[in-house]
Amino acid sequence: MARIFNFSAGPSTLPLPVLEQVRDEMVDYHGSGMSLIESSHRGPEYSEVHEQAGKLMHELLGLGDEYKVMFIQGGATMQFSMIAHNLLSGGRKADYTLTGTWSKKAIADAKLVGNVNLVFDGTEDKFMSLPAAADIKASEGAEWLHLTSNETIGGVQWQEWPDVDVPIVCDMSSDFLSRKLPVEKFGMIYAGAQKNLGPAGMAIAIMRDDLLEKCNRELTAYLRYDIHADKDSLYNTPPVFPIYVSKLVLEYLKANGGLDWANELADKRSGLIYGMMDQHPEFYRCPVADHCRSKMNIVWRLPTEDLEKQFIAEAKAAGMSGLKGHRSVGGCRASVYNAMPVEGAEALAGFMDEFAKKHG
Amino acid sequence: MARIFNFSAGPSTLPLPVLEQVRDEMVDYHGSGMSLIESSHRGPEYSEVHEQAGKLMHELLGLGDEYKVMFIQGGATMQFSMIAHNLLSGGRKADYTLTGTWSKKAIADAKLVGNVNLVFDGTEDKFMSLPAAADIKASEGAEWLHLTSNETIGGVQWQEWPDVDVPIVCDMSSDFLSRKLPVEKFGMIYAGAQKNLGPAGMAIAIMRDDLLEKCNRELTAYLRYDIHADKDSLYNTPPVFPIYVSKLVLEYLKANGGLDWANELADKRSGLIYGMMDQHPEFYRCPVADHCRSKMNIVWRLPTEDLEKQFIAEAKAAGMSGLKGHRSVGGCRASVYNAMPVEGAEALAGFMDEFAKKHG
Repeated sequence: MARIFNFSAGPSTLPLPVLEQVRDEMVDYHGSGMSLIESSHRGPEYSEVHEQAGKLMHELLGLGDEYKVMFIQGGATMQFSMIAHNLLSGGRKADYTLTGTWSKKAIADAKLVGNVNLVFDGTEDKFMSLPAAADIKASEGAEWLHLTSNETIGGVQWQEWPDVDVPIVCDMSSDFLSRKLPVEKFGMIYAGAQKNLGPAGMAIAIMRDDLLEKCNRELTAYLRYDIHADKDSLYNTPPVFPIYVSKLVLEYLKANGGLDWANELADKRSGLIYGMMDQHPEFYRCPVADHCRSKMNIVWRLPTEDLEKQFIAEAKAAGMSGLKGHRSVGGCRASVYNAMPVEGAEALAGFMDEFAKKHG
Repeated sequence: MARIFNFSAGPSTLPLPVLEQVRDEMVDYHGSGMSLIESSHRGPEYSEVHEQAGKLMHELLGLGDEYKVMFIQGGATMQFSMIAHNLLSGGRKADYTLTGTWSKKAIADAKLVGNVNLVFDGTEDKFMSLPAAADIKASEGAEWLHLTSNETIGGVQWQEWPDVDVPIVCDMSSDFLSRKLPVEKFGMIYAGAQKNLGPAGMAIAIMRDDLLEKCNRELTAYLRYDIHADKDSLYNTPPVFPIYVSKLVLEYLKANGGLDWANELADKRSGLIYGMMDQHPEFYRCPVADHCRSKMNIVWRLPTEDLEKQFIAEAKAAGMSGLKGHRSVGGCRASVYNAMPVEGAEALAGFMDEFAKKHG
């Protein structure tokens, strides 16, 4: 079968040249006589991969030495646990924004350990909008502010960043590396790998020294950020394959123009799909407020659920998979991460046009 | 370069047919038009892999339905954290055996959370032996007994199991699936994947219902065994690639004869190498007591450190890598896990013979 356009929310599409390189290197890595997934994590083959992955991350995001890049297993869900235990134990307090399913999970873990103050709660609005960034203020005694930069299920994304005098701790799982960041605002950036970066099986945790110093050191070992940082993510055996593939994706991103390029493509892809909704406003309806529409996870409804089912099935037959909305909200969703070719968004927009003309 | 014999302690050698299959399926998985590492963890391609991996694990180990198989990120090190928080919080008590580097780490985490009683401490003996299994008794109030079935660094392995009236919780990271088990003795079996099972990036945690019921449910989400068990390891995105490759390894193991076959090969490989030490007792010295010599990680010394360096370098030049002992103990170590061909052990034994004759 020909390669499909895979609009899954994660794990999600990866650059084809990266997959081909992984295939070509799988059995004998660079003439070493073994696969990279067989080689010692302290050996020369893997050490070079590990070091380059960290360097590329620093370079592409424009991170100074005061930011430590860690590769930690467990995805963003494990980060919810670690953030709570490292940064909230002992009665400490943080501000959180409740903007959808993922921030809700982060908050649930945080509340089990420390004091959580909600500076925004989108529950009543069913998470279909975000506040203006300028309206977010830090509360008395809160040490940091937690944001979820993009909510994969609701399809909302912060397009601007709050101006607060505490560090922002940000879950960027679903829009990591898709745009330039004012890095200095962030005390911590974390992201599950399986959307914009690589295969499932780890999170990137980037923490600035001032926050690292405040981490609880009386935790069991794997939960301690200070250990992961001090040991350069090699305290125990790292997730070799996800780090290896992520390194290849980072190289691919760099070679093509870095975050400016990623941002340009995100604008193009999302512009094509939201633009098509505007052309058929009676047929396609995006429930998300204009100012916070996600450029990564685009959600929309059709006039009836039956038409939605038909749309998803016919799109799949036409080589476009993963367009079903999350089971908790229904409707349609197109996840258009960094590795989705613009041609994929063009194909989807074209299909939407035809479908609306036929059934509208 | 031709395929080498890779004696690394982990990550470690995998069956060549498995690597070849991973290569062949990498870009287009079973005609789906995408890689398995790109496909949704709720989609049909991955779901089948996930289900089969669990089923094969049950089948090969002879586990009943009362045992839940979980795939959890973070390796055995993360299990040290989870066991402590789930099974020792609130003043609970367990017996531990201190038999080397890995049990030491398990104990350190356990002590941070609960009450640990050492029923064996091999520190003074520098972890070069294990007690007789029959000498291990459970202490008053201990809910379970922790064993490390094989210590990768020291090269000691339990050849028999203690007869206690509490469940055994056992770290089998480095000899998992290498022999049949009296399953009913174990309340929990866990193992980092990257030795006998698959690529780095997860642990298998097998827990019996009676222990699962005793797990702490007031922990942050990723730390909760009950959540991983209830959600069949799909509470969040699972480590797709390690589970996929592990499933292929399990199929390979089953097709070749399962744990009886694995055990037979382990006897052969370790017999060849220990046997060669016996042939040159003045030259090779195994520091480990006879009754607990590991069939997975074989350690030995040569008359001088210079000869050890030369041995390791010449072996490497002859296509045998990873023979350097762990940096904490020095000497030589051959890790001969399930996927090491018997030819690898024959080649190593032959090389040992020649080297001893030349330098002895």
